[in-house]
Amino acid sequence: MKILFTFQPPEEMKMKWAAAFPACDFQFYEGIQSAGKSLAEAEVIVTYGEDLNEEHILKAEQLRWVMVMSAGLELMPLKMLKEKEILITNVKGIHAIPMAEFVLGLMLQYAKQFPRIMKDIDQGIWHREIPGLELAGQALLILGAGAIGSEIARLGKAFRMNVLGINTSGRKAENFDSMYQMDNLEGALGEADYVISVLPSTDYTRGLLGKEHFQCMKTSAVFINIGRGDLFKSTVLVEALENNEIAHAFLDVFETEPLESVHPYWNMEKVTITPHLSSRTKEYLPRSAAIFEENLKSYMNNGVNYINEIDLERGY
Amino acid sequence: MKILFTFQPPEEMKMKWAAAFPACDFQFYEGIQSAGKSLAEAEVIVTYGEDLNEEHILKAEQLRWVMVMSAGLELMPLKMLKEKEILITNVKGIHAIPMAEFVLGLMLQYAKQFPRIMKDIDQGIWHREIPGLELAGQALLILGAGAIGSEIARLGKAFRMNVLGINTSGRKAENFDSMYQMDNLEGALGEADYVISVLPSTDYTRGLLGKEHFQCMKTSAVFINIGRGDLFKSTVLVEALENNEIAHAFLDVFETEPLESVHPYWNMEKVTITPHLSSRTKEYLPRSAAIFEENLKSYMNNGVNYINEIDLERGY
Repeated sequence: MKILFTFQPPEEMKMKWAAAFPACDFQFYEGIQSAGKSLAEAEVIVTYGEDLNEEHILKAEQLRWVMVMSAGLELMPLKMLKEKEILITNVKGIHAIPMAEFVLGLMLQYAKQFPRIMKDIDQGIWHREIPGLELAGQALLILGAGAIGSEIARLGKAFRMNVLGINTSGRKAENFDSMYQMDNLEGALGEADYVISVLPSTDYTRGLLGKEHFQCMKTSAVFINIGRGDLFKSTVLVEALENNEIAHAFLDVFETEPLESVHPYWNMEKVTITPHLSSRTKEYLPRSAAIFEENLKSYMNNGVNYINEIDLERGY
Repeated sequence: MKILFTFQPPEEMKMKWAAAFPACDFQFYEGIQSAGKSLAEAEVIVTYGEDLNEEHILKAEQLRWVMVMSAGLELMPLKMLKEKEILITNVKGIHAIPMAEFVLGLMLQYAKQFPRIMKDIDQGIWHREIPGLELAGQALLILGAGAIGSEIARLGKAFRMNVLGINTSGRKAENFDSMYQMDNLEGALGEADYVISVLPSTDYTRGLLGKEHFQCMKTSAVFINIGRGDLFKSTVLVEALENNEIAHAFLDVFETEPLESVHPYWNMEKVTITPHLSSRTKEYLPRSAAIFEENLKSYMNNGVNYINEIDLERGY
């Protein structure tokens, strides 16, 4: 059976798989375009989930399983995959540790004013009068109380923060000091010193935050978005920052990625851009590969007990 | 009774003290030099501990108590203060939270490569191929397992790190996975991905680390010194970095402070300088003031139960 990769894993991984799964014919391409006619014979496609369209699925006549090496599925041709009853699995769950570390890193960078300190140091200036902040005692609000949000909450508690969350029921969850219901979003936003969104892109979350939500926040609030860029219109955030409604925004995700080269964010002192890499560490591919390997065993043995099998009715 | 400050606290603190301690005559100066003749009448001196010399102590004929609003006493004229049997108290203990947050902030800045990401972003470059690291699973060695070291250890555990410490007995302490004895320092250094020193300056610690200690460390190791700058000769660290014996050093303290303007550290890519401010946050003065107030109550009431009374035999 042919397994088609739309990216190039490291050589040692290729060798390991060839030895572990001798019945499989692994084919590695740099992008789906270069796969050419192999697509027609692929029973499995392994992808980061940003390159497949309906045309590819139509051509892949033998296709039975798509292994997505990321968590977001919004760029996948889900409707056609559902029609053709193709198995989809992803690597949901491996993002919690790197993304939570990334968020705490940003919060500490802000509190400890590292960029401002480094600016002085780069100019040879020894300047001790930079007023640092502490995370201890501050309120941290997390939008999205799933695996990633819970890991951020756990670290927030370790830093002696007051950790608030939002979910549909308002029911208390581990590592959260208080849980708000979604209909009290504005109240929760008004409490927070740090507002973190890890929300995925769904019909519900798209455009969830409007002008009024940034106006609810403290003028000293720091907003961090590592979820999805369509949570709000960037014009709304630009205006909120220009009006000093909040103090700073750290943005890892955007309505359009890469961020357009003419976007105002690039020149705003109160915006720190990172290029969608909160989950990207050297551990990412090994962890994804481990899930792929387990699922490949299931696929070859019995076709049950997949890790992260996507329910295409629910969409996740 | 006259209480002489060698620095200017905020106005609201002055007003609060005047109201709370009507029997005291508070005098606030910008530096000990400007105190002039008031020194002769001062029964209490409140200082950051870097400005008093023997001449001042001789002039301060009424002096009975020095409240040091910092933790380090190495610049104080301790010999003469001991001879004159003057009470010394300091603010030891308030440094744990800010310094531990500072250290984790530096570690995350390194692991997440924020400066490198920002360099691209400043040039308008969207570059996602920057390989981040995780703290999870890494080994953290803390030299100095007191209050600050323990708080760093606690946060290290929260980040799922393997936390190692060193003390004289090798006896296990809370939040440490393993504790080494001092005579196994080289072994401990060889285990660590991050080596943090919070050691104070004592006869034992001065020059404790030599060439051979940096050679024991992993070539990928990150060394962070927020203790005291005389732990090693800077020539030793410069050589270790130039020989790629370790990967990076974050230095908040130096043999001479401010760091000499001609020091090689300023131009080394593998050195990140911060100007001795790991404990400096907006919470510092309020917390110090709270200890001063409690001690002033004790001083006026009964002269016992001081917070952080220094034993001048031991020197801490």
